[in-house]
Amino acid sequence: MKSISTVRVRYAETDQMGMVYHSNFFVYFEIGRTDFFRESGFTYRMMEQDNVFMPVVECYCRYLQPAFYDDELCIQTQLEMLSRLRLKFLYQVTRKVDSRLIAEGYSVHFPTNPKGKPCRIPSKYLSALNSEGAVS
Amino acid sequence: MKSISTVRVRYAETDQMGMVYHSNFFVYFEIGRTDFFRESGFTYRMMEQDNVFMPVVECYCRYLQPAFYDDELCIQTQLEMLSRLRLKFLYQVTRKVDSRLIAEGYSVHFPTNPKGKPCRIPSKYLSALNSEGAVS
Amino acid sequence: MKSISTVRVRYAETDQMGMVYHSNFFVYFEIGRTDFFRESGFTYRMMEQDNVFMPVVECYCRYLQPAFYDDELCIQTQLEMLSRLRLKFLYQVTRKVDSRLIAEGYSVHFPTNPKGKPCRIPSKYLSALNSEGAVS
Amino acid sequence: MKSISTVRVRYAETDQMGMVYHSNFFVYFEIGRTDFFRESGFTYRMMEQDNVFMPVVECYCRYLQPAFYDDELCIQTQLEMLSRLRLKFLYQVTRKVDSRLIAEGYSVHFPTNPKGKPCRIPSKYLSALNSEGAVS
Repeated sequence: MKSISTVRVRYAETDQMGMVYHSNFFVYFEIGRTDFFRESGFTYRMMEQDNVFMPVVECYCRYLQPAFYDDELCIQTQLEMLSRLRLKFLYQVTRKVDSRLIAEGYSVHFPTNPKGKPCRIPSKYLSALNSEGAVS
Repeated sequence: MKSISTVRVRYAETDQMGMVYHSNFFVYFEIGRTDFFRESGFTYRMMEQDNVFMPVVECYCRYLQPAFYDDELCIQTQLEMLSRLRLKFLYQVTRKVDSRLIAEGYSVHFPTNPKGKPCRIPSKYLSALNSEGAVS
Repeated sequence: MKSISTVRVRYAETDQMGMVYHSNFFVYFEIGRTDFFRESGFTYRMMEQDNVFMPVVECYCRYLQPAFYDDELCIQTQLEMLSRLRLKFLYQVTRKVDSRLIAEGYSVHFPTNPKGKPCRIPSKYLSALNSEGAVS
Repeated sequence: MKSISTVRVRYAETDQMGMVYHSNFFVYFEIGRTDFFRESGFTYRMMEQDNVFMPVVECYCRYLQPAFYDDELCIQTQLEMLSRLRLKFLYQVTRKVDSRLIAEGYSVHFPTNPKGKPCRIPSKYLSALNSEGAVS
């Protein structure tokens, strides 16, 4: 499964180069992840209420085209890798109006308990995610 | 007492008008507050560890001059009003190089417990703040 | 006219109190403003391309209830005051699921040219805004 | 050369996990870069005034330990690769009080003109950077 999210670029997200400041793409990726979980049948919010957290342990982005204020962007999110102890998401951000690829990247997450200790993803979440089919 | 903090404008804080995006001044005010507490003899971090939180219930800013990337700004912070149930801070932001007033504003805080219920400021913090002398 | 915008709270917008960090409401207000212009028949982006900018010269917010990660929030925006040299917008932010008022505030803007010098709002924008009817 | 920058974690930079939200490390890297340029004898601000921009074309971070509100962090920045058409910076972020490694990463930049077209780094900047010695 690939989930699709849409964001409209906020003025606050631009910088004096007149385009989206690069670190904001990691916030867009987070929106993609939130929607991916929702489409898998649960919410990340529920998961945290169940005391499972998904901190980012690694992330990467490359930038192909600038994105501008008021642009509508599509964030395509997929789960590349899933195990009880590690998840990896892939993201592609395109501009809606011209379908150009703006940026792409990934994030890696280790599930933890509220104290930050590694834990396993509970079965109900794992099976919901599994049924979505990780990429490989 | 007035505490003085210094920040250098980050690229991330600019917008496509080429100046600091307005909401970032509330982050500068927060830095001013953090330093004000530190100069009063304790840290806000300690206060939270003692289960006293200071959420913002009201805030205001007016902007007189734009601030630019890499500008060094001074934040002057003072406590205008202090009671067991309410604090009000005043802030003035000036540019270091030309002493121009960039922005000024205030924030009002109600102390709460970790659940967000109003609470009283513990005496040790209150007396530390009192000895700094609220403005009026 | 009141325009209505919807945002979903991002994880990035929360702080360690577990709620939306206060300065982010000014970003929500900016989204409300962008949508208000769009519903008036033009975009703020167009206006900037016409060399008219609308920097914030004053802003205020008061906070009534915390907003949480993944909450859907409605931003109601209206134009309280409009002249060729000054605009004032009012905002109310409510939580969708329980209709509670989260925060309300305002922002004041002076139109400027790209160099930051005050200018008049061009007639085409002024009449589009006027036909929406400022509050008073 | 390695330049050293210091930042104190802002409340605004934390999230509801109680630690620094991951994308903020790219802002810390930007501070490191700004200081690296300054120590090389010029400022990035000057470079932009000379119509040379350094957009990020790629960036990466991995997270080893959480950083907390009010922590003092050191950002160590070095130039790993330098040519007229491409720069790569490496960053390490450590916590001052216990010297623990919090995060490390890199960013790659292509110099461009104000329109975003690739350009060459002017000789005066290149030689200033060269004299600092890229890592390899």
